[in-house]
Amino acid sequence: MPEPILPIYEDDFVFAEDEPFALESGGSLQPVRLRYAVYGKLNEKSDNAILVCHALSGSARAGDWWPQLFGEDGVFDLSRDCIVCANIIGSCYGSTGPQTINPATSKPFGASFPLVTVRDWVRSQALLLDHLGIEKLRAVIGGSIGGMQAIQWAIDYPDRVERSIAVGAVPLTAMGLALNHLQRLAITNDANWRNGEYEAGLEPNGGLALARAMAMISYKSEKLFAERFARKPNRNGEDPLRSLNERYDIGGYLDHQGEIFTRRFDANSYLIITKAMDNFHHANGYQSEHEALRRIEARVLLVGISSDWLFPAEEVNAISERMREAGVDVEYAELQSSHGHDGFLAEPQALSLIVRRILSDADDAAQLASQPSR
Amino acid sequence: MPEPILPIYEDDFVFAEDEPFALESGGSLQPVRLRYAVYGKLNEKSDNAILVCHALSGSARAGDWWPQLFGEDGVFDLSRDCIVCANIIGSCYGSTGPQTINPATSKPFGASFPLVTVRDWVRSQALLLDHLGIEKLRAVIGGSIGGMQAIQWAIDYPDRVERSIAVGAVPLTAMGLALNHLQRLAITNDANWRNGEYEAGLEPNGGLALARAMAMISYKSEKLFAERFARKPNRNGEDPLRSLNERYDIGGYLDHQGEIFTRRFDANSYLIITKAMDNFHHANGYQSEHEALRRIEARVLLVGISSDWLFPAEEVNAISERMREAGVDVEYAELQSSHGHDGFLAEPQALSLIVRRILSDADDAAQLASQPSR
Repeated sequence: MPEPILPIYEDDFVFAEDEPFALESGGSLQPVRLRYAVYGKLNEKSDNAILVCHALSGSARAGDWWPQLFGEDGVFDLSRDCIVCANIIGSCYGSTGPQTINPATSKPFGASFPLVTVRDWVRSQALLLDHLGIEKLRAVIGGSIGGMQAIQWAIDYPDRVERSIAVGAVPLTAMGLALNHLQRLAITNDANWRNGEYEAGLEPNGGLALARAMAMISYKSEKLFAERFARKPNRNGEDPLRSLNERYDIGGYLDHQGEIFTRRFDANSYLIITKAMDNFHHANGYQSEHEALRRIEARVLLVGISSDWLFPAEEVNAISERMREAGVDVEYAELQSSHGHDGFLAEPQALSLIVRRILSDADDAAQLASQPSR
Repeated sequence: MPEPILPIYEDDFVFAEDEPFALESGGSLQPVRLRYAVYGKLNEKSDNAILVCHALSGSARAGDWWPQLFGEDGVFDLSRDCIVCANIIGSCYGSTGPQTINPATSKPFGASFPLVTVRDWVRSQALLLDHLGIEKLRAVIGGSIGGMQAIQWAIDYPDRVERSIAVGAVPLTAMGLALNHLQRLAITNDANWRNGEYEAGLEPNGGLALARAMAMISYKSEKLFAERFARKPNRNGEDPLRSLNERYDIGGYLDHQGEIFTRRFDANSYLIITKAMDNFHHANGYQSEHEALRRIEARVLLVGISSDWLFPAEEVNAISERMREAGVDVEYAELQSSHGHDGFLAEPQALSLIVRRILSDADDAAQLASQPSR
């Protein structure tokens, strides 16, 4: 059992107490709380910070969900880097979200929580960095929704980002929008959902579990399922030929994934965050995609995952090509994995091999040769 | 508007009145009703019959759901062929199914309807053919679950099938089992489902609509969705950036497909038929796949659909290769289509071009050359 990776501190940053934080959707929040965690020390020049952005169900504790990236075979060197990670607005891991009491009604926001976007998250993180005295990031890195944030950071704050690393992240295709739409429908179909005003102990867990199970299908690949489950009956001895309720092994797996998810995630947060995922397009707010991309000053690394059908590698590559056309110093790399989209979590060593070089390079672009930091 | 293709007659065949019809799952039904439709006349020798097998939500009226196959560019020639199609047991289009009154309880079977299998369907169809005086089929043909029946016919009744044509049909992969499992979960999660004992007017339509929408994802392809819907907002003027309920076009499409399905299909039938789809394996009941396949005497045509990810074309091809190894006169053909699995319904002309030759050949294998029938 490896040692847990613990932050040197974890805190709440509260802002927008006097003036509301205006959201891209037209709504606003006042105040806003960001739960964040810090791993490694900020140096005196405050120029060693790396912002890690989490995916749908992640938290500020990057060491919990990306531990191998902190290890010896990883990419973060806590003797060199200061890792900052903040829980996104709308989530249920400490930041302002649907479970937060709405000051206007003294009740939880529930499904009345305003729509948030990737740009809102990035802007809130910029305020956190101001608060921490970090003017410029050595890097911003994330996978999936975290990767969307990494791309958006490079566009919205070109002078604050030296490197942007996005894994398995592009605007959703129609198929991705379809999958998210049906996941939300699974939740809102649940009789316990009650327009988002569910009570403690009466959460729409059936719907949330189904949503998560559907997501698992899109996070993994057909190949992986075939290897792991094939047409085997559920491992607890069920016989799917015998009755309607008896399952194949893949069914037992998906039910289990759904069930454990309901113990750790909130249904309204799931609605809000998948909606932000839908609505992400790096060109939002700019006259054109080209205009957005040409703002980028960071070195960019886009990583596609070979078996990812939610964020297809060829789409990731296509964005890297359009970035190049816009003059961006961009590199495309492909993570070979049968894990599908989940490859960014399931293949940390292979991912680290890809990411390490861009992170270990000295900041000075004129440096003669790149070399590993350890 | 093309003329509707109408059967020359439609009738119910009732059997197992004295002795129960034993099912592969161990259950039984007594009596059993099969709704069937006949297009074109059976000739004096009763050797011109083609059995058409329908897919999940089809009916005995093959002319309704495969009309183009009856047309001039199709494959059925009603001056030559007698087309027979029967609604499968468990369905809701006239044959015995969950909506049927269970004689033992005087209430509808509901979810207590016994599990049925593809082999049960095929055996019930054989009894229908006995009743109609059809000893041998010129051909059996179907797509999806219909194709499963076509394969099973050739194995279970080798001396009654001259040609077997199966489109997009193989035992489900783990991914397919996963998709069906979650569709059933969508139904059983619905508060109206009530363990299958729902009342008229209080059907689990939300769950059934979600199940159908999930199925549509698996029936179509990412490419088709990208071409048709891309990231466009729903065509009725919704703005997905504005509120949780406003949709992208693909969401509006899926909701519509789900909604219209609930007007024509029964939730318990959906459970029973998808379970039979799960449980299909042509080797079931035989010592090995090889032993099952070497029984086949029919000429077999297996058609894979290039963009089908529910029944991948490479799986279809792999079965054709194993059939060949078992000595079967089998041909594999690929239908080029961006429609995904639905290609067997959406591309009738291209499908007809593939199927026509094997159907128009004279029965005598020694015939010198194959030629189009018109």
